Parts: sequence; C-alpha cells; structure tokens
Amino acid sequence: MQGVDWSVADKQAIARALDAFGVDTIEGGWPGANPTDDAFFASPPPLKRARLAAFGMTRRAGRSAANDPGLAALFGAKTPIITLVGKTWDYHAEVALGVSLEENLAMIADSVAEAVRRAETVMFDAEHFFDGFKRNRDYALKAIMAAHASGARWIVLCDTNGGTLPDEVEAIVAEVTRHIPGDQLGFHGHNDTENGVANTLAAVRAGVRQVQGTINGIGERCGNANLISIIPTLMLKMGYETGVTEEGLRGLTRLSRLLDERLNRAPARGAAYVGESAFAHKGGLHVSAVERDPATYEHVAPERVGNRRHIVVSDQAGRSNILARLRDVGIDIDPEDRRVRRILDEVKAREFQGYAYDGAEASFELLARRMLGTVPEYFHLESFRTLVERRGEGEEALSEATLKIVVRGERVLTVAEGNGPVNALDAALRKALLPHYPEVERLKLVDYKVRILAPDRATAAVTRVMIESEDAAGNRWSTVGVSGNVIEASFGALADAVTYFLMREGATAG
Amino acid sequence: MQGVDWSVADKQAIARALDAFGVDTIEGGWPGANPTDDAFFASPPPLKRARLAAFGMTRRAGRSAANDPGLAALFGAKTPIITLVGKTWDYHAEVALGVSLEENLAMIADSVAEAVRRAETVMFDAEHFFDGFKRNRDYALKAIMAAHASGARWIVLCDTNGGTLPDEVEAIVAEVTRHIPGDQLGFHGHNDTENGVANTLAAVRAGVRQVQGTINGIGERCGNANLISIIPTLMLKMGYETGVTEEGLRGLTRLSRLLDERLNRAPARGAAYVGESAFAHKGGLHVSAVERDPATYEHVAPERVGNRRHIVVSDQAGRSNILARLRDVGIDIDPEDRRVRRILDEVKAREFQGYAYDGAEASFELLARRMLGTVPEYFHLESFRTLVERRGEGEEALSEATLKIVVRGERVLTVAEGNGPVNALDAALRKALLPHYPEVERLKLVDYKVRILAPDRATAAVTRVMIESEDAAGNRWSTVGVSGNVIEASFGALADAVTYFLMREGATAG
Repeated sequence: MQGVDWSVADKQAIARALDAFGVDTIEGGWPGANPTDDAFFASPPPLKRARLAAFGMTRRAGRSAANDPGLAALFGAKTPIITLVGKTWDYHAEVALGVSLEENLAMIADSVAEAVRRAETVMFDAEHFFDGFKRNRDYALKAIMAAHASGARWIVLCDTNGGTLPDEVEAIVAEVTRHIPGDQLGFHGHNDTENGVANTLAAVRAGVRQVQGTINGIGERCGNANLISIIPTLMLKMGYETGVTEEGLRGLTRLSRLLDERLNRAPARGAAYVGESAFAHKGGLHVSAVERDPATYEHVAPERVGNRRHIVVSDQAGRSNILARLRDVGIDIDPEDRRVRRILDEVKAREFQGYAYDGAEASFELLARRMLGTVPEYFHLESFRTLVERRGEGEEALSEATLKIVVRGERVLTVAEGNGPVNALDAALRKALLPHYPEVERLKLVDYKVRILAPDRATAAVTRVMIESEDAAGNRWSTVGVSGNVIEASFGALADAVTYFLMREGATAG
Repeated sequence: MQGVDWSVADKQAIARALDAFGVDTIEGGWPGANPTDDAFFASPPPLKRARLAAFGMTRRAGRSAANDPGLAALFGAKTPIITLVGKTWDYHAEVALGVSLEENLAMIADSVAEAVRRAETVMFDAEHFFDGFKRNRDYALKAIMAAHASGARWIVLCDTNGGTLPDEVEAIVAEVTRHIPGDQLGFHGHNDTENGVANTLAAVRAGVRQVQGTINGIGERCGNANLISIIPTLMLKMGYETGVTEEGLRGLTRLSRLLDERLNRAPARGAAYVGESAFAHKGGLHVSAVERDPATYEHVAPERVGNRRHIVVSDQAGRSNILARLRDVGIDIDPEDRRVRRILDEVKAREFQGYAYDGAEASFELLARRMLGTVPEYFHLESFRTLVERRGEGEEALSEATLKIVVRGERVLTVAEGNGPVNALDAALRKALLPHYPEVERLKLVDYKVRILAPDRATAAVTRVMIESEDAAGNRWSTVGVSGNVIEASFGALADAVTYFLMREGATAG
C-alpha cells in the first residue's frame, strides 16, 4: 500500500497484537523479497496461539522445486505454515509468466508437494481465481485441483483485481465446493468496488472456512478485505466461531487503533464497528430514546467490540445530551444541579459563535470544568503580537511572535520565530511555560485544521481552528478555538490543548 | 455527520455538480430544521435535469396534516419532490414517538395524502424498515402499504441502523415486491457493517429501482451508502441505466474530489474507483503486463470513471491528463508541442509541494498560460507585512497589513486593517489596485479554505489555501496558494484570484 513502510519492530508488535486478539494465522511477509521481511523471520516474536505463515511464489519454469532459489528462501524461514501463490488464470500464466498452461500446472503441483515436505501446513493462494474462472473455468479448476491433489491443506480463492461482485463470488464458490470441500477452501478479497467485506461474507455463506484479510483493510490499491468489519459480523450476526473469543472481540477497537498508530495516521472516524462516530448519536429526543433502549438504535452493543457510545453535543443539544456528555468525560453531576442548565446555555451560545464540540471533547470538558470551578489557571495571557513579513521577491516570509503572559505569578515575556505565525506563537508559549512546567516538553501537536465559517464573507469570515494533541503515552485529544482572526482562534485552541494536558498530568497552578 | 457543516454556498455548488453529473433527485435538506436549509430552499440553484426534494417528518400525533407546523414548513419549500419519513418499526412508533400503532398508520396515510396534493412526486422513507420487518413483519408491511395506498410514488426501505446484511436485504426486499412492485421501491442504506454498497446492490438485484446514497458515503455514524461506488458498479458491471450517461460517469472522480474540497479534507487514496491509488501499479514485470493488456489487471478502465492509471515508471497518463486539462480550460495546443512536457513537469513539481489543481482550475489555467507567455503582469509584489496584535484581556486583536507593489509602472504603498491578517492583506491589495483597475470593485471573494498538509508536523506543516471568487455576472473560479506560511499561501491564492479576474475582464497591464 502506498505510504505503508513497516519496520521490523512494527511487524513484531503487530504480530503480537494479532496473536493476543486471537487470529489463527499471521502471514509475516515474503522471505527473500526485502531485508525487513528477512529480519522479521530471523527473529519471529513469541506467539501464544497464532501460527506464522511465510509467503512465496511457485517455482520458476524449468527448475525443480527442490532447486529453486525463491522457494529456498521461503523454506529457509522455517515457518509452520507456507503460503504459495500461483496463477490460475490462463492468460496470466501464458502472458505475464510466459509459460505453457501445462508447465504452470506442474509448477503448482511440484511447489506444493515440496512445501508439504517442509512445513506443517501448506496454503495455495489461487491468484486471479475469479477472473480466471469466468474466462476459462476448466483451467482455473485444474490449477486449484493440482494444488489440492499435491497436498495443500487450504485452497484460497483470490479476487486479486478486486472487481468481482458478491453474487458472483457466492455462485463461483458454490461451484468450487462441488470439487473441493468448503472446509479446505479460503477466500482472499480486495475492496476495488467497496465490496471487500460483502464478498468475504458471501464466500463464507457459500462454504469457505478460511478468510484472509487485513486490519483496517490496509492493502494495495483500494485495500484488502477488512477483518475489523468481517470478524464481528461473522461472530455477532452470523453465528460463526472464529477463534477470537467474546472477550478477545472487546479488543477489536484497540487493535484497529494500534495499526493506525503504527501507521501514524488518524483513525477513520466513520469506520464500521470501531470508528469514533460508529455509535454516535445526536439530537435531544433521540438521545433519551437511545438511553432507554440502545438496542433499537444500535445494530450491536458498542462494548462488544470495545467501542463506546458517543453522545454528540450539538446545537440541538438538550439537557439529556449534556448530562450524557458530562458522564462521558467523567463528570458526575446531579441532573437537577442548576449548573447543568448554565453549561448547556454556554455550549449553545458558543456553538452559535462557531465553536464545534463534536470533535473537540477536551475543549468541552474544559468548558464544563471551568464552569464548575475545577480548572486551575496555569497561565494568564496578557498580550501577544505576531508579525509576518516578506521582504523581497523570492524571499521566504519571516514569522515572529511576541508573548506576554503570567505564569505562577511571574510575568514572562518571550519571543520566538516559526514556520508561519501560529507555529511562532506555539513556540513562544512553550518557551514561556517550560521553566515552570517542564512536562510541556512531552506535549506534541499532531494535527492542526482550519475551517472558515460563513464563507460568503470570505476572508472576513469567522475562523474555527481545531488542534489535536498527544501525550507521551499516546493519548490524543482535540481542542477548538474560534475567532474572526485566525491567529486568535489558533491561540484559543493552543491554550486549551496545553491546559488540558497540564490538568491531566495533575499539574498545579500555584 | 460529525464535522460536516455545509454553508448555503456549499449546498448550492454541490447541487449544481450533482445535476451536471446526472443524478435524478437531489435531497436538499429539511425545511424548518435550521437556517441553512431554509436559505437553500429560498434560493434553490437552477437545475438542468435533476429535481429537488425536501425532507420532513410525517405529521405529529393528534394534528391534521393540513394543520401541522412541520409539514407546513416542508410544503413551504415548494419543491417538486417531497420526501416524508415515517416509523415502520412498531417499537419506535410506540416508544420513541409515543403514539399508538393505529395513530402512526394514520399519520403516515394523512401526511402522504396531503403531500400528494402539494408536490409532483412523493417519496416515503420507511425508517427502520428492516429491523421493524424482522420484529413485526405485518406491521412494517402495513406501514408501507399505508403510504403506498395514499399515493406515494416511491416507498424507500431504510436500513436506518445500518446493521442488516446483504442476504437479509435481498430476502426481505424480495418479500416486499410481492406487495409493491419493484419499480416503486427504493433502498436507503448505511455502512455500519461496511456493507452499505453491497446492501444497495442486493436490493437492486431483488428489484428496487431507486437508490438513495451520498457522495463519498458522507453521513452520520459510519456513513450512508456510497453512490461513488454504487453508480459505476450498476452501470459498468451490472448493466443498469442510471440516468448518468457514459460521458457523465467520467466526471465521477471530479465529483468525489469536489465534495472533499468542500469538506476541506484530503480525499481517501484508497477509495473504490476514484481514489488516487485505485488504479496504482508498481513493479517492473507487472507494469509491462498491465500496459500490454490493462483489462487483465484492472477491474474497469480508469478513464471510464474519470480516474487514471498510476504507474511509477510511466507518465504517459500524465501527458494525456494535462492535454485534457488544457482543453478543459480552453487552451488548444498541439500534443507534440514541447511546452506540454514543460507544463506537465511544472504541475508535477508544484503538486509535490502541495498544490492541488483539481479544485483550482483558475490557478491551473494561469500556470499554463504563464508558461505559454499569455498572462499580463498586472502588478508586481515587492513586499508585504502583516501584524496581529492582542493588547489586553478581552480586547479584540487588531490586524494590519502593509503592502508595497508596482502597478502599471508606479510603486504603490498601502496599509489596511482587517478582520484577521488575510482580510487586511486583501484590503491593502485592493486599495493599491483600485485607482488603476476600477473593475476590481466588482470582484468578490466568496469562500476561503485552509488545509494543512503533512499534519504530523502540526502547526509547522505546509498550508494550502483555496479561494473561491465571483464576478458581477455570477461566474465563479477557484485559486490555490501553498506555503509553509499561511499568510504567504493566502497571498498566492489572492494574487491569482485577482489576476484571473483581470485577465477575464480583458484588462491590460500597460
């Protein structure tokens, strides 16, 4: 996949997480293809339950399987499982590989037979099987029968180009089960028509008993079939056992987030089952109905996949929304407390100005806690100034920020440069805080977003800035700032990010 | 959907794009629910082919349909199509609405009957239909039959909670077609199990002839069924006519990107059909096989959906893409002209820096025309400076910009204040230009968007600014600026906006 570049440490950490989650088989890579995969197989992580598979191609034309350099590297990985990929579409054998159809069958049969002598379990990945089957049914079947007859434990039907639709998958798998029993068949799907999950479920309905996929659907082009969606559907909706226990399934959301963290990308809010919005509810009347009987508004209980219900604060927010949202951030307050009403009014007033607390829980929590009087004032802003100057043709603009704040009773003046005015302001704020709050060193800003509201006023419009931050333990939170002025809006979000961090770290203002 | 907050201008631009693309029906919002939707229906965009629908709920209990405030707002929008949503799951009628099952049926029948008197076409969205059908089959059927009998043209079966699987959808729709013909049935799906697309296709296979969905699957929780994946699959793989022409389908990728631009978010690289990686190929042997016969490696031809093959070693696609884009903006150039290559290289270099010309045709046209030597230099920037200062507690920040430019041979120094530094810079630029180009008075900036690229560097990241402008005749165009510094990026987009305007007005620089 473009942009994915795992290190050996990444691969080991992910393998351990997959094992703990409860998958049966972990395909660790392609021995001989690159140094990372070789290093991974040279020091595989200890696994409790899962077995490791190494991936490789059938032997080259005109070689014996025992004497093929590619297979030698594969066997050298000494994994309990070997996965061999081979051509099952006549066109690809003849044109892409440039071998006769007979030779291709021999390559499959020989390679599988040799692998069977070297490993506990052999899988055969039938590349381009569905497209091949549609063009030359007999040959595609001959190819998989060659692997089956040579002792492959699993024949995995691959929709390599990803263009097959669910009803076609179901019909073709059903035909294949007349030749090979379903409990020796697997399916490997891609998401090129956004049917990766549905194709996999269709294959299972038609009889296959092995499913290949990836966490979060990571994979080339549009991705592989997404196990994060497939596993809970198989278990919670279709009644299958998957090897993952009910308890293990509660680790689904965590597993999905772990992969995103390793990829250094923001989790997809809308991801099925595990996304932050997957169980989000909005609107007052609706929310009280959800709380009365969640099952009538949620297709599964979020706890079963380790996710949680998310009551979204919005300008339609009613009392019950605010109460639920306060409980969410750990604030337990008597529903009759007058301050609930005051918090609701303040949220509404600010949303009217352009604040959005939907994606900025940390700012919401600060707002509420400030109104409850429980947020220390770690610093007090007196004034700031930012200057951006472009002197001449082709010169880069210089950005500088000056800040005057009071920290723990001391008036501090700092000045800093930066890559743009907001970056300079951030630098000046950190410079002022560090002597008093050395923990600020561990605070990282990971995302910065600007949105213009009421854009028909164009550059005179109101600006909303959202900042996402991270602490050393990898916890993330978002804060929001709004102003007619982008610099001021940015300072608001920055100040909230720092205050939230210090509050969570237990810092005191005195 | 969390984080989605359309302006009226957004909604109008999107409606025009959907119309041009070829959809039949555009649901424009919920009259009476919020000021934006009201403003949209008060000034609907001119549509060539599509018809506008307004959305609303069935009447309240104990009211007549003719005397219901919600319906009055809905009818007041005076759209050709009215979409009414009603409860079809007994539990939701009794508990969420708190009405008797009989009253709920009357609410549906009355509201539909009244709507039939007010609009060309009435659709009934059967909320929670699949869950309702599974719990109380008879009541769910009674509810939709009530709408049908009262004259609803379309009965749209909704999988509101998004948890139904494709085989269930197919079986349930097949049952419904025994009561209501398929060409009066629609399907509305969600993506909570990542089966939004597959469920929709299953419904079509079972007989429905209307499909509801959203561009890029935008929608609450995990999103709605994604039309960007459904439409090409229906047309290219299942042989259906959709109203979108073959030519229209080539606008699919552009349509998808337009929505992301309006949302100010990065397009998903792995999106089916339209993602930048959707037709990516890597590796030598593979690539030559792809070039020999793309159909054996690509499930559809990327051109058919307006996307392109992405091959690392070949820029053939780039050349023809540039030629097509030049033709798009009215530049007819000999494909063998060497300057095509130079423009391509420049575009690539700039896109690598972060420029995006997909949504900024005016900047693309300026870039190309500048390389062809046909853009006058209306003004020449010498230097600028912006200052933002917040003096004290509670005071509003002051923004000031100083500009030195040469206009028609005269060095002009201006200073202006504004609501934020970019607004001040815009004011200073206009002040400098007005004496020489009075037509600048008629130039209006209508939208301003900022996006941060490489967001792991947070406030130090690269900034892309897009500006949308409008002339007195209502023509709109977009320009882009990129820099590490938001002010400089804004100035780049501003300068392009003004230059493009003056060029189109036929102004001369001399």
